[in-house]
Amino acid sequence: MLRLLRSTRSPLVRSLHATSRASLPRLPTKEEVFTKFQFPKYTNTINSINKDIHSHWDQTVTLQGWIDKKPKKLGKKIAFATLRDFEGNFTQIISKDPEIVSKIQKSQIEDCISITGKITKRFAKADQSSEEGEEVRWDLDIQEFNTLNSSDVLTSQLEALKTLPNEFPQQYRYLQLRLPYFQNALKTRSDASNLIRNYLINELKFMEIETPLLFKSTPEGAREFLVPTRKSNLFYALPQSPQQYKQLLMASGVKNYFQIARCFRDEDLRSDRQPEFTQVDLEMSFANARDVQDVIESTVQKIFRDIGKNELLTLNEDGSVRKGGDLIHLNYDEVIAKYGIDKPDLRSTLEIVNLTGFCEIPENPEFPVFEALVLRGVLDESNQHIPQNIANMTQYSKRKPYFLEISTPDLQKSWTEQISSKFQLKNTAQLHEKLNLQIGDVLVYSDRAETSYENPTPLGRCRQLAIEEYPDRWRRCSEHENVALWVENFPLFNPVEIEGNSGYPIYDYKKFEATHHPFTMVQLEDYDQLFQNPLSVKGDHYDLVINGMEIGGGSRRIHDAEIQKYVLSEVLQIKNHDELFGHLLKALELGCPPHAGFAIGFDRLMTILINSNTIRDVIAFPKTSNGSDLVVSSPSAVSDKNLKEYFIKNID
Amino acid sequence: MLRLLRSTRSPLVRSLHATSRASLPRLPTKEEVFTKFQFPKYTNTINSINKDIHSHWDQTVTLQGWIDKKPKKLGKKIAFATLRDFEGNFTQIISKDPEIVSKIQKSQIEDCISITGKITKRFAKADQSSEEGEEVRWDLDIQEFNTLNSSDVLTSQLEALKTLPNEFPQQYRYLQLRLPYFQNALKTRSDASNLIRNYLINELKFMEIETPLLFKSTPEGAREFLVPTRKSNLFYALPQSPQQYKQLLMASGVKNYFQIARCFRDEDLRSDRQPEFTQVDLEMSFANARDVQDVIESTVQKIFRDIGKNELLTLNEDGSVRKGGDLIHLNYDEVIAKYGIDKPDLRSTLEIVNLTGFCEIPENPEFPVFEALVLRGVLDESNQHIPQNIANMTQYSKRKPYFLEISTPDLQKSWTEQISSKFQLKNTAQLHEKLNLQIGDVLVYSDRAETSYENPTPLGRCRQLAIEEYPDRWRRCSEHENVALWVENFPLFNPVEIEGNSGYPIYDYKKFEATHHPFTMVQLEDYDQLFQNPLSVKGDHYDLVINGMEIGGGSRRIHDAEIQKYVLSEVLQIKNHDELFGHLLKALELGCPPHAGFAIGFDRLMTILINSNTIRDVIAFPKTSNGSDLVVSSPSAVSDKNLKEYFIKNID
Repeated sequence: MLRLLRSTRSPLVRSLHATSRASLPRLPTKEEVFTKFQFPKYTNTINSINKDIHSHWDQTVTLQGWIDKKPKKLGKKIAFATLRDFEGNFTQIISKDPEIVSKIQKSQIEDCISITGKITKRFAKADQSSEEGEEVRWDLDIQEFNTLNSSDVLTSQLEALKTLPNEFPQQYRYLQLRLPYFQNALKTRSDASNLIRNYLINELKFMEIETPLLFKSTPEGAREFLVPTRKSNLFYALPQSPQQYKQLLMASGVKNYFQIARCFRDEDLRSDRQPEFTQVDLEMSFANARDVQDVIESTVQKIFRDIGKNELLTLNEDGSVRKGGDLIHLNYDEVIAKYGIDKPDLRSTLEIVNLTGFCEIPENPEFPVFEALVLRGVLDESNQHIPQNIANMTQYSKRKPYFLEISTPDLQKSWTEQISSKFQLKNTAQLHEKLNLQIGDVLVYSDRAETSYENPTPLGRCRQLAIEEYPDRWRRCSEHENVALWVENFPLFNPVEIEGNSGYPIYDYKKFEATHHPFTMVQLEDYDQLFQNPLSVKGDHYDLVINGMEIGGGSRRIHDAEIQKYVLSEVLQIKNHDELFGHLLKALELGCPPHAGFAIGFDRLMTILINSNTIRDVIAFPKTSNGSDLVVSSPSAVSDKNLKEYFIKNID
Repeated sequence: MLRLLRSTRSPLVRSLHATSRASLPRLPTKEEVFTKFQFPKYTNTINSINKDIHSHWDQTVTLQGWIDKKPKKLGKKIAFATLRDFEGNFTQIISKDPEIVSKIQKSQIEDCISITGKITKRFAKADQSSEEGEEVRWDLDIQEFNTLNSSDVLTSQLEALKTLPNEFPQQYRYLQLRLPYFQNALKTRSDASNLIRNYLINELKFMEIETPLLFKSTPEGAREFLVPTRKSNLFYALPQSPQQYKQLLMASGVKNYFQIARCFRDEDLRSDRQPEFTQVDLEMSFANARDVQDVIESTVQKIFRDIGKNELLTLNEDGSVRKGGDLIHLNYDEVIAKYGIDKPDLRSTLEIVNLTGFCEIPENPEFPVFEALVLRGVLDESNQHIPQNIANMTQYSKRKPYFLEISTPDLQKSWTEQISSKFQLKNTAQLHEKLNLQIGDVLVYSDRAETSYENPTPLGRCRQLAIEEYPDRWRRCSEHENVALWVENFPLFNPVEIEGNSGYPIYDYKKFEATHHPFTMVQLEDYDQLFQNPLSVKGDHYDLVINGMEIGGGSRRIHDAEIQKYVLSEVLQIKNHDELFGHLLKALELGCPPHAGFAIGFDRLMTILINSNTIRDVIAFPKTSNGSDLVVSSPSAVSDKNLKEYFIKNID
């Protein structure tokens, strides 16, 4: 299948080609090659022996793997080493045979070895304190020791860095991946994708269908990767998601589609973003939003139950957590009011308090909602000020909330006066009673618009930072428990923000953008308002949120061509909508059934599943924050001659 | 998850944005929207009723799907239509209710409908001869008929073309995909990939690991797609296969890796080629070629047995076919000698006969092997000449064989003399006896090199054409049976062909290219010859061939860095091998275990599984032969302004 790698293009033509091996002294001899390539088949794994050690005593077995620790010599006649086999388990190997003792002595950490030996009762520990595999009480007394491939001194130098992901040089990612932690991350991911497939295909009658990755450029988004062709000014683009193709599959008569699909996004990277990422993408015809939510919820719960051994928690109406039962559904307006963000972390009980009733005159009339977040008891003798991680402007995108440290009895009594320079208050006595601030509390206060397009709001962002700063406060659940919810009833559109300002955001209320994407259907009861006041309508969109991360989103789609056309041309004012989306509009016109769908961010979901905090841990070869793959050194330069074949040239 | 589609970039700013609905008369009313979007949930599928009709009589059910045939009115008071539900089954729906009769009358083929009705004994057939679903003896007497989305007259016009893949306009691919044939193709593919995953993950302890699609440009092959970045002269490339990453995964300590991976190849398309295609890619560490072959063979047999219900056949030593047991392994030299190609179609018994012993002086001394193919009895009164499909030069790439039609008793006696102008023969009496040509036979003869780098040879190509032309001759098995084999012991390298000539190929025997790829290990017994005479060594490579199609290939890899370096720099003379492959060489140096792997062309395998002859049938949205996706109109032009962000510009 693989194409020839031609040497014809090399300008170098050697006249005498058959170089004698003598001139390349490091090439292995024929005997060495047979040792490296004609190795015996392993008979066991360490785990298979551990599981039933009693039936293995004195047996001769062949094990394969790597030297895990620097080999040790005890006295002159006996040597020890630790073997890590290809399942990531450890055992001690020993020898008193002088020839093998010498081989062990010469071996490096991470040498790849094949050993044959007898399983014996543990002789002695080379180093009682640091030996792995405490529970295993056998040694392998080596009869044959073969190096299948040697390593070099670099692996010893890197040994200490392996567990420090930020410091390990990523060009040697493959050494890091040998750690049991990463092997487990890879296995969890493999198991989870297989579970999803089996559940959707076998139990829910979905089909997995591959859609093209050589897609069409839709420059509206301007965040795509282009792919030049060998035709002048013709480009493919890599898809940000299979959205259009999956809707076309609904028009194709597919009842239930899914795909674990690679997606691409050319934008600045963060710890939870990669230029290529994986999405569990699905779409169902003759179905509505709730049908889709049921499928997603049962799939995700199954992953956490069967693989994570840790069912997702959710909230009761009273704010307590529960295991079991359906996930709670909250409205956008509600989560903005309580948590200041559309993806609230419900592991924390910290909530925003609405104080609008106490505000006579707001600071800014467009932002009439006055609210506060009380960080109770975070100050004490040793910490008299709010930490900079919470208070610093750099942590906020446009504007930050106001902070008031209740550090003295005086402030405790007069704090409403302090606020009055910004917000003119009323009924202050009741306000004092309501918040009941104590010395040591921090009052954080701010304002927002009635329908907030700031997301997070200043207080919402502050809440995130406070949860990070004080991981042990306001906890609703124990560590490693995960709290999930549905967020729905988002605004379908938001006004375009006029860029370049800091402080209060400024919007052009006559220009709209789709809050999620332009194929989302309006909530039916708001249909008429779509034509009167697009900003007032809610979309039939729903997000699944776990631990403050948006794990996925979906919607009921517009399957009526005229409504879709109206949204594209009249609401969003996309001039060339027919060029960009004409095929989709035509498909809707030709009997496309009603449909709704969803996409799960698979990398993020896996990150939560293994209790990590970076998606890099669940991706075999992630890109760095500037988009490089340091293992293979990509991206790389391409010659002008080569670019010419694609009818493009570099510009500066 | 999906990004906003901004309208901000549109230069058009409307001052009055809230367009009244009155100005867009085709927009549905609120009531119509509720009908289209607030539909009842289907209660049944046609199949669920067919399976147990007796418990369904007189039940009221809701079914959903499409109008499959033009609705008919019988007299004035009764109307019929055929419903095709979303599982692709058919039933007749009837009504005598005037309002519903009128709705049926107005409906179009491919209207998407939801109907509620009573299951009744079949009333009468609208058209006895053409009705679908003969075996189903029930009608649905409609109580409620709702159009969920209408279609237009185009679908009726396209109706007749649906089953003609070459004539159906591919921009409406989604209409074609509604046919049960294509739904079955999609389902078979989904089931097969799921079977592969379960078998490899659950039974053989493989992990599925995703590798990057934003890879590095390796211009040696010059058949890749580039992906510009937003940095000057830095490009990713889309991978032709995950070859390098999977070898890096072996260095990462992964025991058994696989991935159903998208691959990309920027080259001319044929009926079995697409610019993006899918590969079942796998690699095993601490394993050799035979271990890999065992996994592949059992996986592929499982697919044909469980999904195709049709186990693969293979050959016995005596040339007869058998079911069961291991697939036969043939050497490259052997299949070139017998079939003139490295991927022989063993469904046919047609074999090349070696006549070198009868040739005193060959036409060309570099091509000393003289051989023939006898097409017995293909001529008769009505067909006095060999068909142009076989004899035409256009069917051959460089040179074609010689043809001799044994059409007269005279020729039957003197044919050896006819040949003597090209090949000087000896022992012609024995030759006559050996071939025993009869009137009506066609003798095809040609020559080849001892180790043939022509693949197919002229006779090998002729054999392919003859099998296509005469599908009922020389059959080893019945139609829809599939015959598989392993081909191995390929030459590891071949000499570079000097381009631009027709007729006999000319090689530069001092310049080598890898027959498969440069990571393939030499057969161990040939190791010393690698340094003396690279062209003489065999590679440890193996292809799986079914019905004359290469379904996949694999090899034992070089895990010794020095041997790999030697092959890249000394044999293949790749000057910048360190820049291109330095990361792989380093990984080999750091304790990479021995490994071997394989890649199955999944699209081709699926094509055989559904008895199709084009991979387009098993791909939801294939590209045309010039690389276009007519559904979404890709590739497309991109503005200079947009290209500038990627630091490139168009050239002519």
